[in-house]
Amino acid sequence: MEQKELYDLLHNVKTGALSVEDAVTKIRLMPFEDIGYAKIDHHRAVRQGVGEVIYGAGKTPEQIEGIARSMQKRGQKTILITRLDEEKASRLHLPGLRYEALPKLGLLGPLPEPDGIGTIVVATGGTSDIPVAEEAALTAEVLGNKVTRLYDVGVAGIHRLFACREEIMGAEVIIAIAGMEGALASVIGGLADCPVIAVPTSVGYGASFGGLSALLSMLNSCASGVSVVNIDNGFGAGYLAGMINHRRI
Amino acid sequence: MEQKELYDLLHNVKTGALSVEDAVTKIRLMPFEDIGYAKIDHHRAVRQGVGEVIYGAGKTPEQIEGIARSMQKRGQKTILITRLDEEKASRLHLPGLRYEALPKLGLLGPLPEPDGIGTIVVATGGTSDIPVAEEAALTAEVLGNKVTRLYDVGVAGIHRLFACREEIMGAEVIIAIAGMEGALASVIGGLADCPVIAVPTSVGYGASFGGLSALLSMLNSCASGVSVVNIDNGFGAGYLAGMINHRRI
Amino acid sequence: MEQKELYDLLHNVKTGALSVEDAVTKIRLMPFEDIGYAKIDHHRAVRQGVGEVIYGAGKTPEQIEGIARSMQKRGQKTILITRLDEEKASRLHLPGLRYEALPKLGLLGPLPEPDGIGTIVVATGGTSDIPVAEEAALTAEVLGNKVTRLYDVGVAGIHRLFACREEIMGAEVIIAIAGMEGALASVIGGLADCPVIAVPTSVGYGASFGGLSALLSMLNSCASGVSVVNIDNGFGAGYLAGMINHRRI
Amino acid sequence: MEQKELYDLLHNVKTGALSVEDAVTKIRLMPFEDIGYAKIDHHRAVRQGVGEVIYGAGKTPEQIEGIARSMQKRGQKTILITRLDEEKASRLHLPGLRYEALPKLGLLGPLPEPDGIGTIVVATGGTSDIPVAEEAALTAEVLGNKVTRLYDVGVAGIHRLFACREEIMGAEVIIAIAGMEGALASVIGGLADCPVIAVPTSVGYGASFGGLSALLSMLNSCASGVSVVNIDNGFGAGYLAGMINHRRI
Amino acid sequence: MEQKELYDLLHNVKTGALSVEDAVTKIRLMPFEDIGYAKIDHHRAVRQGVGEVIYGAGKTPEQIEGIARSMQKRGQKTILITRLDEEKASRLHLPGLRYEALPKLGLLGPLPEPDGIGTIVVATGGTSDIPVAEEAALTAEVLGNKVTRLYDVGVAGIHRLFACREEIMGAEVIIAIAGMEGALASVIGGLADCPVIAVPTSVGYGASFGGLSALLSMLNSCASGVSVVNIDNGFGAGYLAGMINHRRI
Amino acid sequence: MEQKELYDLLHNVKTGALSVEDAVTKIRLMPFEDIGYAKIDHHRAVRQGVGEVIYGAGKTPEQIEGIARSMQKRGQKTILITRLDEEKASRLHLPGLRYEALPKLGLLGPLPEPDGIGTIVVATGGTSDIPVAEEAALTAEVLGNKVTRLYDVGVAGIHRLFACREEIMGAEVIIAIAGMEGALASVIGGLADCPVIAVPTSVGYGASFGGLSALLSMLNSCASGVSVVNIDNGFGAGYLAGMINHRRI
Amino acid sequence: MEQKELYDLLHNVKTGALSVEDAVTKIRLMPFEDIGYAKIDHHRAVRQGVGEVIYGAGKTPEQIEGIARSMQKRGQKTILITRLDEEKASRLHLPGLRYEALPKLGLLGPLPEPDGIGTIVVATGGTSDIPVAEEAALTAEVLGNKVTRLYDVGVAGIHRLFACREEIMGAEVIIAIAGMEGALASVIGGLADCPVIAVPTSVGYGASFGGLSALLSMLNSCASGVSVVNIDNGFGAGYLAGMINHRRI
Amino acid sequence: MEQKELYDLLHNVKTGALSVEDAVTKIRLMPFEDIGYAKIDHHRAVRQGVGEVIYGAGKTPEQIEGIARSMQKRGQKTILITRLDEEKASRLHLPGLRYEALPKLGLLGPLPEPDGIGTIVVATGGTSDIPVAEEAALTAEVLGNKVTRLYDVGVAGIHRLFACREEIMGAEVIIAIAGMEGALASVIGGLADCPVIAVPTSVGYGASFGGLSALLSMLNSCASGVSVVNIDNGFGAGYLAGMINHRRI
Repeated sequence: MEQKELYDLLHNVKTGALSVEDAVTKIRLMPFEDIGYAKIDHHRAVRQGVGEVIYGAGKTPEQIEGIARSMQKRGQKTILITRLDEEKASRLHLPGLRYEALPKLGLLGPLPEPDGIGTIVVATGGTSDIPVAEEAALTAEVLGNKVTRLYDVGVAGIHRLFACREEIMGAEVIIAIAGMEGALASVIGGLADCPVIAVPTSVGYGASFGGLSALLSMLNSCASGVSVVNIDNGFGAGYLAGMINHRRI
Repeated sequence: MEQKELYDLLHNVKTGALSVEDAVTKIRLMPFEDIGYAKIDHHRAVRQGVGEVIYGAGKTPEQIEGIARSMQKRGQKTILITRLDEEKASRLHLPGLRYEALPKLGLLGPLPEPDGIGTIVVATGGTSDIPVAEEAALTAEVLGNKVTRLYDVGVAGIHRLFACREEIMGAEVIIAIAGMEGALASVIGGLADCPVIAVPTSVGYGASFGGLSALLSMLNSCASGVSVVNIDNGFGAGYLAGMINHRRI
Repeated sequence: MEQKELYDLLHNVKTGALSVEDAVTKIRLMPFEDIGYAKIDHHRAVRQGVGEVIYGAGKTPEQIEGIARSMQKRGQKTILITRLDEEKASRLHLPGLRYEALPKLGLLGPLPEPDGIGTIVVATGGTSDIPVAEEAALTAEVLGNKVTRLYDVGVAGIHRLFACREEIMGAEVIIAIAGMEGALASVIGGLADCPVIAVPTSVGYGASFGGLSALLSMLNSCASGVSVVNIDNGFGAGYLAGMINHRRI
Repeated sequence: MEQKELYDLLHNVKTGALSVEDAVTKIRLMPFEDIGYAKIDHHRAVRQGVGEVIYGAGKTPEQIEGIARSMQKRGQKTILITRLDEEKASRLHLPGLRYEALPKLGLLGPLPEPDGIGTIVVATGGTSDIPVAEEAALTAEVLGNKVTRLYDVGVAGIHRLFACREEIMGAEVIIAIAGMEGALASVIGGLADCPVIAVPTSVGYGASFGGLSALLSMLNSCASGVSVVNIDNGFGAGYLAGMINHRRI
Repeated sequence: MEQKELYDLLHNVKTGALSVEDAVTKIRLMPFEDIGYAKIDHHRAVRQGVGEVIYGAGKTPEQIEGIARSMQKRGQKTILITRLDEEKASRLHLPGLRYEALPKLGLLGPLPEPDGIGTIVVATGGTSDIPVAEEAALTAEVLGNKVTRLYDVGVAGIHRLFACREEIMGAEVIIAIAGMEGALASVIGGLADCPVIAVPTSVGYGASFGGLSALLSMLNSCASGVSVVNIDNGFGAGYLAGMINHRRI
Repeated sequence: MEQKELYDLLHNVKTGALSVEDAVTKIRLMPFEDIGYAKIDHHRAVRQGVGEVIYGAGKTPEQIEGIARSMQKRGQKTILITRLDEEKASRLHLPGLRYEALPKLGLLGPLPEPDGIGTIVVATGGTSDIPVAEEAALTAEVLGNKVTRLYDVGVAGIHRLFACREEIMGAEVIIAIAGMEGALASVIGGLADCPVIAVPTSVGYGASFGGLSALLSMLNSCASGVSVVNIDNGFGAGYLAGMINHRRI
Repeated sequence: MEQKELYDLLHNVKTGALSVEDAVTKIRLMPFEDIGYAKIDHHRAVRQGVGEVIYGAGKTPEQIEGIARSMQKRGQKTILITRLDEEKASRLHLPGLRYEALPKLGLLGPLPEPDGIGTIVVATGGTSDIPVAEEAALTAEVLGNKVTRLYDVGVAGIHRLFACREEIMGAEVIIAIAGMEGALASVIGGLADCPVIAVPTSVGYGASFGGLSALLSMLNSCASGVSVVNIDNGFGAGYLAGMINHRRI
Repeated sequence: MEQKELYDLLHNVKTGALSVEDAVTKIRLMPFEDIGYAKIDHHRAVRQGVGEVIYGAGKTPEQIEGIARSMQKRGQKTILITRLDEEKASRLHLPGLRYEALPKLGLLGPLPEPDGIGTIVVATGGTSDIPVAEEAALTAEVLGNKVTRLYDVGVAGIHRLFACREEIMGAEVIIAIAGMEGALASVIGGLADCPVIAVPTSVGYGASFGGLSALLSMLNSCASGVSVVNIDNGFGAGYLAGMINHRRI
């Protein structure tokens, strides 16, 4: 549709209906996305036919409803709403909305059939990291990925992690989520030979300084193949993991 | 070879040459890697037949020579030595060694033919980020990747970045390297729809605090698909990018 | 009036009604502002006949009412009250008070006719930055400036920013407001050739550390013409922008 | 010249020499700056006929010579080279080059006649802040501004600052440069009613933490009209001050 | 039991019921802890017959009850529940539960008879450090240690500390707990010749920065024999002190 | 009384009632304060006959009542209770208690007649600093000092400060209290020639980081004679000022 | 002399030689210090007839010589030059200059007779703090104070400190200088009942972070009567101690 | 000897040669250590007959020689000199001095026979941590401990650590030394059931911030029994480990 406008304009130049001077002016003022190469809606239209994501924080219930309905009209079957607190969720009039209290996620429609290359492993150091982990896991699932959850496999009891070594070594991407000392990412990075996305969490007390300790630890990982996203950013990790698991053909 | 040891042991059990009790003890004490599922040499043997990497910092010239020669004996054709300062390089007796002064890299043997899925784009905000960028780019090339370099395309003159939009939008993975305000990762992350690995550099002065400003900026990127490695960690970014560009079949 | 006191004193010296010695003593003890060159009331009397601003935080409703009424008696038509929380606003007995909940501003009287040199553009990276932006925009409007609002034009979807390039390139001053990675100021600074006032916001989570990430990012901007005010300081940015837009003749 | 290309293309469409389809493709791939609205060279071509600035750090002597000569060929009379250390300056073959050791600046050609609105005051807290101040002052002069220097007027001996109150109150823009506690910006901001650009310097010891103390102090200034640039960023302050002093007609 | 599995497997190899190939596969996949050398349950089974500890934070009342009952079934007499807030404690259905509100600890069963080498001294700088101190002291007591409490013996009134010098010099291990300036650890470390475990607390205001001041102070202690645990980590200190006081035979 | 014990012991040695050996042992074990040179009760018995101070935070109402009554029994006329929140104050059964809500202070008995050398000036930058200032001022008054209050004389409107120059230059000690940029201490330190005790406050927002900005600024003051106490520590400043104003004869 | 100018002006008004209007203008422009109430030269003329101090850092040898000679001409007998590095000192042509290498001080003329109220004690935690201590001690001596040095009395061997308790308890002011954990100030503050000026030093390694650890520790001292100056600021502490020891009559 | 003085004094009281009054005065002024219960020389006389340690940094060669010779005269056989740089070591005239360049240690005399309870394991994450490790190991050996070194067993290649599990699980105390992410302490703490002393090192780059990353990581270890000493403080760890390994009988 956007390219059509440019075609029309050029046809008008060709037929003389538009002067060259006016065409130059129009092209220069033409909004960037109309020329066609920019992603019209980067955040939401990521993978047509799979799932879409609404960032719920800072939006009113009405805004969320409006966006969700407009997506549904466009034929979107699965919609994920992130950072949606319980009180706001209870005020949403969206038939069929499923609410996950732990990761503060709302889900509309069925999870799509996984169509990624392999499996995404989501691992956490402790049970308190699970809310962030579920944000990552559900985001990945909504975007069409198969997810294996390995929770509470922190390095202080490393035998629990090793009991899962088959899952770790067979993963396509791993999301390693931990607060406190954040060592999980390094140990997993040393075992696996696939990309590891480390998510520091704000879980902890004292000198964990709201996740800073885990963040620095993960950035300094000696293991190759490890990169880091923001503290508590489960969505970002799930999204990136899904991207890696859906590489172009 | 390591598994052979376990086979032998079990055969001895079978034939009665070894009692069950002694076998239990032996298995329990058997070094982990001998049982076969651990990666024997995670860092160096990443992709047999492609390239190997020696971390040069903190090693004596003699140690580096020893490791390199042992690799060559095992048939390794291409060897990359990272964090190798000029003075140490000049003391290395390795015939055919090529030294890149900017990224402080030594290279033995030819670059392998690229066999990755697509192209890795390495972009920098300024010219001072190039040493880190070359560390990333050469690491990726040694591991069998095709690399496109887009240097000095920082956001303060954003038209330079846009002149490269075809390369950005066609990449399989992008490494975005910047010091100072580190905005490059966000802008590229907003344009591209592939994984973006952000590398903050220690380039800058004043409130850049040795790369902290760029690091925080990149961690807080609003663009999806962006993850971050340590300050100045070109090797880590190149390695991870190569991993993503060589997904399992 | 203050200078009159000095005139009287000198006349008394001239006529002998005051001894030279007593005059010396009096002049030495004369309060600074009475000699006439100090700004009697820097904060509030900025632009006579245009608008005045009351900083509401830390003042009781009674104090605010008293100041506002005294301003009105002096003929002030438009009065802005900043950092005024909703509960306090509801306890103010000021006929005609308009309250803006988002930026926590109270407004008395009509907005003055803009009489600045050009237009002030107020741009935000996201929708959560709007409260700070409205504080900046309304402050500028109360001080007699024409304001164009460009909200939610963050760099992660840079086509939205480029759709506004005419406004950006035609501005007299730009206020760039963003949390998280704060890259907006650099990109706008690279596009525009007018002063850019960057306002980091405390919007974000994790490693945004209450606005520190955006603050450092903006201070390190590679673009020329960018300066920074305190985190969330919309008033300061609006005030400074109005000052630049009202340069002396 | 760049627009000519677009005109030609459209003429070819008009005459049928180019098909509409090919024109669409060409326009989409056309480098951004060619369409004409981006600033071709933001950093260097700021004010034609006045002065140009080369950022010297991280450039080889040959690169600096090349850029300077190319500017001179284009008719540029005055060229400023910033962050140019003494050793590099001594290796430059540029006839007529004047080198200022304190602010590490090189100057080619005469200073232009000031054509700004008013005077820029450059004030420092101490004598150790003078290198940064001279970078600011010379940058402003090269860009066609009249500059008044008020050095060593720090708040610990505030009578020295008050002896300069006429200059402060008559300025069009003030650059306030200080290390240590950075109080100069607040006191000047309280006296003047023009924009104040605060430059924290890394001068100091102990808990000045390389300029952090002055930076935070200046960001928290209670005086209105104060904004801040990066630590030691004299160039940025001089450039911005020149911009404010040269508002559009 | 776990070793039994390995015995059985080897017997089957011996008898030919299992082929060597299948045995190799099974051994490689055998969960780590099953081979017998890892500590099955590091956190909870520390000292059989003495006491066990449940970390209460982040667990539901039901989970805590479940774990406690299962421990009791296994014959455990004394169980400590740490980080258990009052509201959660009131919802626990565990007959005989004793709740200590200050250190937020729940206790089931009698304290065991002390069987350590000597006495553990728990000293605090002020009265506000007592909650952390009681967490440490009770943890140590549950693990079978004799504890002497020396509270409010901070260095600002050092005669109070010296009045306790006999206890300090006769201790086997000392836990020194302090907020604010954290000097207690150094002074005690200088008096005693046994290991001193320093616990910084988040007690304080202003530049104590949530315990950072005490933490840094304790890490920098000039006294030998001092080591540090996390801010407010009374449990960790009590556990480690008990470990040192119960060395192997 | 304490010395009596030592006298008795020595008399017993003299009379032979105590052997020399036993005396050595007893002296070695004698609590430090009993020997007489340590201050028995540093915090509370500062200046007999003047005033005493109870630190209220972290004490129960019962504890506060107990201490206050015991002081009154000992003949103490004036008692100050600091850091006493309103709710706790309302539960105190202390006849004649006066409660100051702003500085959270309780006062029993009349203020003593000032008997210091001169006057203590307590100055604040803004009105929000007044709670800390009143804690300082009342502490000083209770300890027998004459106090002059100069509130809201911050440097952004420096004429207000200069209107008070007689008080500043005539002070014996000055307490300079400010949040935000903390410049007040430097400017006063530059005007006065007496000791200046700087108190940073946590007043402010954004990059004031809970008082850190003012703290660093004050520590870096270029003015001589300035020292700093903890953020918001009005009591400490008042106490120290009183000490300086009551030098030994 | 400065007041004479004002007298002359007023006499001219009285005689009619100067019009009232011109007098108003002249008074308004009269430099602040000329009116007499400001301290003409705060830093250097502190105590006429005693000693003067030149801050040597950032001054050329010629500047230092010029200032020193001009002081000597005005009759100054004792001159202290601080922060004077050895190389610069060797280039000074000042007959009779004594150079102290450790504290980097130059001294001209004899030390004045002490005329303060009592004794200033300068105490250090270790031997590495002595350079800062000597800067403090010599500054105090040059300003006419009696100084007692107690070096290497850190809290890790607290008996050494107690061996000096007579000096500590008899002091008029104490300067407590320490790096690492900075506990010295608290312990001395708890023993003494005079003002304690704490000087953190940058001595230490690891988590001492250039003196930050000692700084925070000292700011958080629980002992009353303690205030803090900048890291390594021996001069500031010596100057302030001298001020307290020379209170007005 | 010191107690003799007290005996003599009491005898004189007994015989009447000294009045009770004078004895009271003398006892009150008696230096603390003379009374006998304080450790005369905490740092150096730790374990008579085993080894002594001289802290070499900040001491001249002459001072070190003097202390060493005086120790030898007192019969000391083994002496360790820590933080002794190579240049200073070469200037020491101490026959038989052995110098270890890596940990910057000097050693006089033979290593004593180990007489501790068990074995101290010293483990490092990488080869660059070895200098700190050797400082720890040699300190422990000089103090009479048996030491097992496990170097380069970092968590990124965790099979190397597991190959050493017998040593880890058989240790009496473990010193875990690592830079970068510092995860080694947690993993070892999870495997072992003895005290683990964690030593962060300043090894690393970028966001390791001179050891801060490893320090925070280790403080936040989820494993029980882990405590931390200062960054690079190998001596402190070795000393504390030796203390734990030599518990009282």
